[in-house]
Amino acid sequence: MAKPEKHVFVCTHSRPSDHPKGSCAAHGSQAVVDAFANAFESRGLWGRFKLNTSSCLGICEQGPSVLVYPEGVLYQKVEARDVATIIEGHLLGGEPVAALEASKDVWG
Amino acid sequence: MAKPEKHVFVCTHSRPSDHPKGSCAAHGSQAVVDAFANAFESRGLWGRFKLNTSSCLGICEQGPSVLVYPEGVLYQKVEARDVATIIEGHLLGGEPVAALEASKDVWG
Repeated sequence: MAKPEKHVFVCTHSRPSDHPKGSCAAHGSQAVVDAFANAFESRGLWGRFKLNTSSCLGICEQGPSVLVYPEGVLYQKVEARDVATIIEGHLLGGEPVAALEASKDVWG
Repeated sequence: MAKPEKHVFVCTHSRPSDHPKGSCAAHGSQAVVDAFANAFESRGLWGRFKLNTSSCLGICEQGPSVLVYPEGVLYQKVEARDVATIIEGHLLGGEPVAALEASKDVWG
């Protein structure tokens, strides 16, 4: 196992379905995890990147949230269809995907 | 919520107690989480640092493992008593605690 070039953390925190804050799990975070895992597998990227789930990253209403280190870029409202964009633009291309980034008010 | 200066991830992955790989949970990771949380609280450090649990970081036999970004320093066999050392040396002092770092063979 090598230290990864980029490390992707997907918040999968869960709350009861009627909780007012919502949660990344309720917003579909597992589909995002699966999309990253499937893409890393099919494209042979596991050697370069690492994928983990994490506890609550704090922007519950804007979930699912995805955090990429070492840059510390926090993405919000990520859907499975956004994963290829993050992989192409950020993980492989080195440019964070501005359109998906959380507000600087919450992570600035 | 500001982007943290340092982000601490503690692996809390769990496996059955008789599993040959062991797990960070079986090695006492919750006590490490609690030690970080208590120290951040008592020392007023929540505004600078963030703490999350994560899924399996991959060095199960050497758990509990703790990963600190943005540097991407992976610590192994961390005990609650080591937490103050990591906070003083690395989080506040900026120098990773070499004695606790995982081998370069597994994270180099």
